[in-house]
Amino acid sequence: MKRPLENIKVLDFSRVLAGPYCTMLFADLGADVLKIEKPGSGDDTRHFGPFQNDESAYFGFLNRGKKSIELNLKDEVDKEQLLQLVKETDVIVENFRPGVMKKLGLDYETLKELNPQLVYTSISGFGQFGPYSQRPAYDLVAQAMGGMTSITGHPDNPPTRTGSSLGDMSAALYAAFGTMVALYHRERTGEGQFLDIAMMDSIFAMLETNVLRYTVDRIVPSRIGSRHPISTPFDIYGAKDGYIVIAIANDPLFARLCHVVERPELIDDPRFVTDSLRTEHEKELKEIIEEWLSSYTVEEAENSMNEAGVPCSRINSIKDVVEDEHTKIREMLVEVDHPIAGPMKVPGNPVKLSLTPPSIDKAPPLLGEHNDEIKKRLLKVGID
Amino acid sequence: MKRPLENIKVLDFSRVLAGPYCTMLFADLGADVLKIEKPGSGDDTRHFGPFQNDESAYFGFLNRGKKSIELNLKDEVDKEQLLQLVKETDVIVENFRPGVMKKLGLDYETLKELNPQLVYTSISGFGQFGPYSQRPAYDLVAQAMGGMTSITGHPDNPPTRTGSSLGDMSAALYAAFGTMVALYHRERTGEGQFLDIAMMDSIFAMLETNVLRYTVDRIVPSRIGSRHPISTPFDIYGAKDGYIVIAIANDPLFARLCHVVERPELIDDPRFVTDSLRTEHEKELKEIIEEWLSSYTVEEAENSMNEAGVPCSRINSIKDVVEDEHTKIREMLVEVDHPIAGPMKVPGNPVKLSLTPPSIDKAPPLLGEHNDEIKKRLLKVGID
Repeated sequence: MKRPLENIKVLDFSRVLAGPYCTMLFADLGADVLKIEKPGSGDDTRHFGPFQNDESAYFGFLNRGKKSIELNLKDEVDKEQLLQLVKETDVIVENFRPGVMKKLGLDYETLKELNPQLVYTSISGFGQFGPYSQRPAYDLVAQAMGGMTSITGHPDNPPTRTGSSLGDMSAALYAAFGTMVALYHRERTGEGQFLDIAMMDSIFAMLETNVLRYTVDRIVPSRIGSRHPISTPFDIYGAKDGYIVIAIANDPLFARLCHVVERPELIDDPRFVTDSLRTEHEKELKEIIEEWLSSYTVEEAENSMNEAGVPCSRINSIKDVVEDEHTKIREMLVEVDHPIAGPMKVPGNPVKLSLTPPSIDKAPPLLGEHNDEIKKRLLKVGID
Repeated sequence: MKRPLENIKVLDFSRVLAGPYCTMLFADLGADVLKIEKPGSGDDTRHFGPFQNDESAYFGFLNRGKKSIELNLKDEVDKEQLLQLVKETDVIVENFRPGVMKKLGLDYETLKELNPQLVYTSISGFGQFGPYSQRPAYDLVAQAMGGMTSITGHPDNPPTRTGSSLGDMSAALYAAFGTMVALYHRERTGEGQFLDIAMMDSIFAMLETNVLRYTVDRIVPSRIGSRHPISTPFDIYGAKDGYIVIAIANDPLFARLCHVVERPELIDDPRFVTDSLRTEHEKELKEIIEEWLSSYTVEEAENSMNEAGVPCSRINSIKDVVEDEHTKIREMLVEVDHPIAGPMKVPGNPVKLSLTPPSIDKAPPLLGEHNDEIKKRLLKVGID
C-alpha cells in the first residue's frame, strides 16, 4: 500500500496528548516518527491508565507505529547524537512550555542552522508569545480561557468542560494541518519554517459564530444546554429510559413531529405556527413532547420518528458508539497488536483517503526499543 | 508575503459550516477558492445572522478571501462551464448528502476522467458508506451519535452539547489535514484521490482516551462535569462573583492551595494526604475550597493563587476572551473590510507559520461577484 508520508522523518519531543496525537496522525500515514523519551521513565502517559497487562493503553493509542529512543536532553553525549538526528530530520514536534527548548539549545533558531529545511512545530497552552505565554496549560484551563466553557452546559447550572480534551485535540489538528502546509511549501521551495500553535487560540477558533454574536451584535452568548439559538424544537428530550435528540428547523418537519406525538392540532396552534413563535414558547413545547416521550423508550421513539422522517437520534454512550456497526464498518475502532499487552482496541483515523489511506498496523514502541538500532547507525555516520 | 497555497485552485461546492470552514483555512493561506453558489440565493448562511448592514457576518467570517460564481448545477450550459472549471482545478470540496453529487454527474469517478490529478474532498454527517450514510446530519446529531454528548455535562443533569458546532469544526479540520496530505502526495507522484470525511467519525476520534476506558477497562465513562477522572481538586469552583478553575494534580501543589485558602492544617489531614484520597473525599474538599472562595471575587482569588503558583484560571465569557489582550496580540481576532457591511471583526487563524503566515486581507464575495470575470475567461478558453 502507498503511504503518503513515508519519506517524512519526524523527531518527536512531545509528551502526553496534543503533540503525540499530532505525530500519531503522521505515523498513521506512513511517516517515520522517532519519539525522544526521558531515560528510564519515558513519556508520562506510559504511567497513565487504563492498563492492559501493565502496559498503558493511553500511551499505546497515541504512539502506535512510532519508534522510541531514550536520550537525556541535558547530557552532552546524548545531545551530540540528537543533533546528528536533527540533520536528517524533516519535522520536529514539541510541546514543552515556551522557552524550555531554547534552554536546552534545541530551539528553532539554533537547529535551523544545522538543517535549514527543517519544519519545526511547537504546541503550547498559550503560544510562544503573548502575556499568558508562560502560564501552565491544562486542557481544563485552555477550554476555560478560550471561552468554550462559558457556553457549554445548562443555563441554571455551572459551566462545564467538554467531555474530552478539546484544547489538546484541536491544537493537535491545527498543528497537523499547519505542518502539512509547511511541508507542501518546502516541497516546492526548499524552505523550512517554524509553526507556533496554542491551545487557547485553537479553542477560540473552534467557537465559530459565537464570536460574531458578540463582535457584531454585542450579545454575550450564554449557556443554552443543547438548544438551538434560533430553531425550536431542537434540543435533547427525556424519554422513558433515556434521552433523545430532536432537530426541527422548519414548519413541514414540525407538522410531521405533531403527528408522531399524536397532537396534530398543534400544527395550527397560534403558539407554534412559526419557528420564532415555537422558540418563544419553547418550554410549553418541551413539556408536550416529553409528555408523549414518557410513554416510549428511546428506541421506540427513534423508530417512530425515523419512519415519519423526523430528524432525531439517540445519545450514544461510549459503549454504544464503540459497539455500533457503523463505527466498525468505518474502521473507527482498530486493533493494535502490542508485544506485551496483546491486541489493544484503539480509536481509528477519520482521514479516509482512497489511494493512500491511514494504516494502523504497527505496535507502539517499548521504552527505548530503538536505542540500539539508531545509536549504531549514528555511530557509523559519525565514523564516515 | 509568501502564500504557501497560492498555486492551488479550489472549487468549493460546500455550504453552511464544515466545508466552508475547511476551504476558509485554504483561502487564508493563499489558495484561489471559487465558491459555486445557487443562483439568486447563494449559500444558506448568507441569510443567517448576525447581520451587519444587512450582510451576514456568519457568511462573511467563513468565506473571506474567496470568490463567488452563481451556477445552476442542473442547467446544461452552466454545467458545461463547471466542467471546464473542473479541468483546471486542484481541489474540490463538497458537503452534500452522499449521493447528491453523483446524481448531478459531479462525483469523483466522473470528474477524475476529466482531471486525473484532482483531489476531491467530501464531508458528510456519517460518511460515503456505512449504515447511517443517508441520515440527515445536524451538528447536534453528530455530537450525540459520536458519543461526545453522553460524557459532557453534570452527573445529575441531562447530557449537553458542546457550546459550539464541534461536529462540523472537527470534520473541517480532519478534512483540511487530509486534503493537504493528498496534495503533498500529488506533488510527489502526480496522483489525485478521493477523501471521505464524516462528522460522526470526527467526533468519535476526538473522544481520545474515553474510548479506551471502555475497550480496555469495560467502564462506560459518564458525565463528571469539569472534574478530572483521577486528580482532585481539579474542577470548576464557585467564587463570590463567578466561577474559577483550579487544577491540582500533585501533593506539593495541594500544599500551596491549602496556604492560599488559609487552611494549612489540611496538608496533613488524613483525608487529603494523597491524590486518590483527595478524589475519594472530593465533596468535602470542594466545600472547603468554596467556603474560602465565597469571600473573594474571581479576580482576587485568581491573583492570590497565581502569586502562590497554584494553577487556576477564570472562565472567560465570549466578551472576555474577545477583548483579552492575549487574543489581540495573537491576532486571533481580525478585521475584514466588507464592501457593504464595512469592517467586520471575525475569528482569526491559529496556524501561525513563521515564513508563510495566514493572511486575512480580502473581503468575502458578494453573491456572483466573479460571474463576469470567470465566465468571460471560460468563453475565451472555449474559443481557443
